[in-house]
Amino acid sequence: MLDELRRDVLKANLALPRLDLVTWTSGNVSARDPETGLVVIKPSGLQYDEMGVDDLVVVDLDGAVVHGYRGPSSDTLSHLGVYRHRADVGAVVHTHSPYATAWAAIGEPIPCCLTAMADEFGGDVPLGGYARIGTAEIGEEIVRSIGISPAIIMRQHGVFTIGSSLDKALQAAVMVEDVARTVAIARGLGTLARLSEEEIAANHSRYTTRYGTATASAGVTPAGL
Amino acid sequence: MLDELRRDVLKANLALPRLDLVTWTSGNVSARDPETGLVVIKPSGLQYDEMGVDDLVVVDLDGAVVHGYRGPSSDTLSHLGVYRHRADVGAVVHTHSPYATAWAAIGEPIPCCLTAMADEFGGDVPLGGYARIGTAEIGEEIVRSIGISPAIIMRQHGVFTIGSSLDKALQAAVMVEDVARTVAIARGLGTLARLSEEEIAANHSRYTTRYGTATASAGVTPAGL
Amino acid sequence: MLDELRRDVLKANLALPRLDLVTWTSGNVSARDPETGLVVIKPSGLQYDEMGVDDLVVVDLDGAVVHGYRGPSSDTLSHLGVYRHRADVGAVVHTHSPYATAWAAIGEPIPCCLTAMADEFGGDVPLGGYARIGTAEIGEEIVRSIGISPAIIMRQHGVFTIGSSLDKALQAAVMVEDVARTVAIARGLGTLARLSEEEIAANHSRYTTRYGTATASAGVTPAGL
Amino acid sequence: MLDELRRDVLKANLALPRLDLVTWTSGNVSARDPETGLVVIKPSGLQYDEMGVDDLVVVDLDGAVVHGYRGPSSDTLSHLGVYRHRADVGAVVHTHSPYATAWAAIGEPIPCCLTAMADEFGGDVPLGGYARIGTAEIGEEIVRSIGISPAIIMRQHGVFTIGSSLDKALQAAVMVEDVARTVAIARGLGTLARLSEEEIAANHSRYTTRYGTATASAGVTPAGL
Repeated sequence: MLDELRRDVLKANLALPRLDLVTWTSGNVSARDPETGLVVIKPSGLQYDEMGVDDLVVVDLDGAVVHGYRGPSSDTLSHLGVYRHRADVGAVVHTHSPYATAWAAIGEPIPCCLTAMADEFGGDVPLGGYARIGTAEIGEEIVRSIGISPAIIMRQHGVFTIGSSLDKALQAAVMVEDVARTVAIARGLGTLARLSEEEIAANHSRYTTRYGTATASAGVTPAGL
Repeated sequence: MLDELRRDVLKANLALPRLDLVTWTSGNVSARDPETGLVVIKPSGLQYDEMGVDDLVVVDLDGAVVHGYRGPSSDTLSHLGVYRHRADVGAVVHTHSPYATAWAAIGEPIPCCLTAMADEFGGDVPLGGYARIGTAEIGEEIVRSIGISPAIIMRQHGVFTIGSSLDKALQAAVMVEDVARTVAIARGLGTLARLSEEEIAANHSRYTTRYGTATASAGVTPAGL
Repeated sequence: MLDELRRDVLKANLALPRLDLVTWTSGNVSARDPETGLVVIKPSGLQYDEMGVDDLVVVDLDGAVVHGYRGPSSDTLSHLGVYRHRADVGAVVHTHSPYATAWAAIGEPIPCCLTAMADEFGGDVPLGGYARIGTAEIGEEIVRSIGISPAIIMRQHGVFTIGSSLDKALQAAVMVEDVARTVAIARGLGTLARLSEEEIAANHSRYTTRYGTATASAGVTPAGL
Repeated sequence: MLDELRRDVLKANLALPRLDLVTWTSGNVSARDPETGLVVIKPSGLQYDEMGVDDLVVVDLDGAVVHGYRGPSSDTLSHLGVYRHRADVGAVVHTHSPYATAWAAIGEPIPCCLTAMADEFGGDVPLGGYARIGTAEIGEEIVRSIGISPAIIMRQHGVFTIGSSLDKALQAAVMVEDVARTVAIARGLGTLARLSEEEIAANHSRYTTRYGTATASAGVTPAGL
């Protein structure tokens, strides 16, 4: 059942330890099947290096297990809360990556002081309020607070990222840790200056509309020289 | 003698450098044989990549060497002090992992400001008092101060973790370094807020009773949605 | 077209993730063909582990794509701005390496407080002003502010390094992150003292004239003993 | 000439990047042949992954090249200054490892606040004064300031370690970076407390006389229980 999606979700989960985003069994990735609306998610409490495609769990949007012999991740209701309210979301990643979680521990959004942050997040990385793990509250708080960003840090807990695809949600999880680290180091060195709203908008627009275009003609604008 | 346990203890010791918890010859793992009560421990002063199963040392609870041709770890009496007073402990891990040892250097418990800490440690990571290496005092101080936590940081020394199994004690050693790092970074960024006792208890209860259950029916509680 | 240079530029781009200088698709390397003056640069938005020699893009100094089926890096105009004004530059590297970018975030040059900095950079690592990505302004600001250093940090953005060869530009990218890290740690520990201009000059002179000489006679000066 | 020692010195040099102690071409290891008194040292300015046994350089204590076709390390006179005044030293390691070099940048010894520091260094890691690279001054300053420690940090420069063997000098280079990191993190967290002279002496004595003994009878002292 959902064989290909389960393989992709397994691959995305296994990317978490490889990308140094998780420790021991923490963290999880899920994705939604666009046809059936079912969600494939990591099982609870299993080591990454022991995980096979049959360990993945398929649940419906109410959290009922439709396929699989393991219990789904204890964060399942948090993921489902996002999918229920955001039709555009196809994948969710959750980690406790250390620098982003440090910002979550002190309860501050990560200020947008780098062009790379404007590019990826369109502004600050937002902060969501504290909510108890294992309830739907977390998903609802994510939806309420994430705005246009693909990543949010949840107070005293960790990181959630979303995307239309597994790849986009993974990219956000990698990039939020990267900027959380750089900005944490910077805060130790001196005073951070936020980019102006105008520069944030200009960078975000360039990044989301022109970046990575696969044809040569859409590349640089020689007129600018 | 105790062939299988020696193999498991070797494997657990070799996990320490792989998990970036130790440097050079520092650190050690032991486990207790439930039938005989004998303890298998790492030899003293040997490089991890030169260690074979025959280098492991078997001692009784008084520290007398029962099997093996090497001297046991200089921390052996510390391990034995734990086994003698805690019948539930089957394995002990000792490291100088850097972030946890940094908290030990300043002599403060690691404050429970993250849900992952409530999950794993049931509160702060406790601090044990200074005791001289190579004596039974360390073991006694661990037992006196560790409480319900599987990990303790020992003042101006390093980390000890305990578990019913090698896997549980290793997990605690990995997780204590992980949270020590995140909370250290957070303390550099701003003010830490401890979780309330109510939230600590709720997280710890969920984690220790529901997490990782291997059957689908014990998974999420759809009623919560 | 420019087959060998494209292979070398690919290899240099692939060195960036291996050297831990970039995250996800960020960063890029280019080099100039000394005969034609054409520049080979990384394509936009492609993952490093999916990149082959045919993905590299050849542009002229006005940014027109001469060869290749992908769009060139969104930083292409920045690179070209350097090549147009610095005939001695054969290669340009751009990264967001975390420690150097942290200095860029707070908008301070990295003070020359280590002999290794005098060696590599001939003084402080200079800071360039903020300029919008995707325009020629960045290249012009680099040329205006970099001085004798092979590396510059650009305010609220990241790092650019230059060299007569790909190897020299890569070396500068590696070394600027190395010293950015050491000096950031040092600033957390206490007060930094800049080397005197005399010591900076003496170190830089020794390093740039004697270091790495391939004949034995040019080695140490026994007379000094 | 000195084939076996050259192989050992090559192996020790190659250990530096593997142990994350050096960047690019920085750092070097040398060893003294006990019979001839000649010293084998790393060549100048060569990448570690391009280095073969024939690239090693053999010099006499006055710095004259006796064997090899490359120039010796620019730090050769520093190494020789140590060998000339310390007959017990068989190997010297030099690195710019980041945490130890950060302490060098601010010009403070690393305070002995951990049992592992008492074990390895017998007290603080000492600080040597600034001396110009490429002269014999550095070697003389090392000898003057290192005391009983196998490691010293040189102001605004980096680390030198010594040992009777290559293995001992390498161990000191690894351990000094390890404790430099832990104590740097600790200083960011709170107030460091130095161990008492009595505890420093007790730990150092235990470590240097009992640790790693290869016979079982010399292991733990059961009487202590």
